Amino acid sequence: MISGHVFIATSLDGYIARPDGDLDWLQPYSEGEEDHGYEAFVANMDGVIMGRGSYEKLRQMNLWPYDVPVVVMSRQLSKHPPEDAPDGVWFTDGSPRAIMAGLERGGWRRAYVDGGQIIQSFLRDGLIADMIITRVPVLLGAGRPLFGALDRTLRVSHVETRSFPSGLVQSRYAVGQTA
Amino acid sequence: MISGHVFIATSLDGYIARPDGDLDWLQPYSEGEEDHGYEAFVANMDGVIMGRGSYEKLRQMNLWPYDVPVVVMSRQLSKHPPEDAPDGVWFTDGSPRAIMAGLERGGWRRAYVDGGQIIQSFLRDGLIADMIITRVPVLLGAGRPLFGALDRTLRVSHVETRSFPSGLVQSRYAVGQTA
Repeated sequence: MISGHVFIATSLDGYIARPDGDLDWLQPYSEGEEDHGYEAFVANMDGVIMGRGSYEKLRQMNLWPYDVPVVVMSRQLSKHPPEDAPDGVWFTDGSPRAIMAGLERGGWRRAYVDGGQIIQSFLRDGLIADMIITRVPVLLGAGRPLFGALDRTLRVSHVETRSFPSGLVQSRYAVGQTA
Repeated sequence: MISGHVFIATSLDGYIARPDGDLDWLQPYSEGEEDHGYEAFVANMDGVIMGRGSYEKLRQMNLWPYDVPVVVMSRQLSKHPPEDAPDGVWFTDGSPRAIMAGLERGGWRRAYVDGGQIIQSFLRDGLIADMIITRVPVLLGAGRPLFGALDRTLRVSHVETRSFPSGLVQSRYAVGQTA
């Protein structure tokens, strides 16, 4: 049975990026000596599912950060896959359910689901097992929200919370049954 | 020197009420035996500042919950104060800064600032000293947001976080200089 897992940072007002996608406000927290558990989280995943925006942002960096397989959800890129895509990256225009079913057949058990729009669609389809949300002590006032519309109230279970000297507060929530 | 203080619960997706103002999702947490510190917080305040919406919602209840003075910010109600207003309630169409200055002259030192719109305007004017935010483990998908637009990025300082068996996670943030 495959399950989706989220590890993401948000501002205190719930944004994962500024309106233009800028992550500058995260910078003070990514360079410190604190271990927020990201490496351990990723090491426990069979691969990553992300959207085109995340993919293209990562490609602008010099180093591709993943040595696990990465699935990029994009109608456009699935029709015209970039020739310079890193090894282990593939592109699909499938639905969240179809993608997860395919990955399960391929032997995946735990998928790292990343990016606001992608997380929202996987949540709506009941494909997220748990979320580790790291709250950054800043109010941005505007931006790209982590969460979006739902067709129902979704109760989650608090598993644990820890805070860091930097002011980050990290909570883990179990979402319940995955598809 | 007077300062504004916030004590409020939000859903995991940042809403303080459903779109119609309903607080049903808070009910499971308000009746338990957990002490979330609200009584102690209010006991430490000289009074409350709220908007018309909060006032009218409270008036629909049988018992007026406050024995401290309450300032209701409402242009409409300040022109036509309700004759049945509880003792110790007054109405004003003043600005946040003017209200706080007036209350300071009146001897207030700590004001409980309540309600989404009111909190947002006091934050914009630098009138909030700290916020105790209690995160409820539920995604509503829509509602009235706690936070709103700001004209700048506002860094806050994490003071402490505690979690409760019910799944509530309560963090206290210092906002910095008040006006």
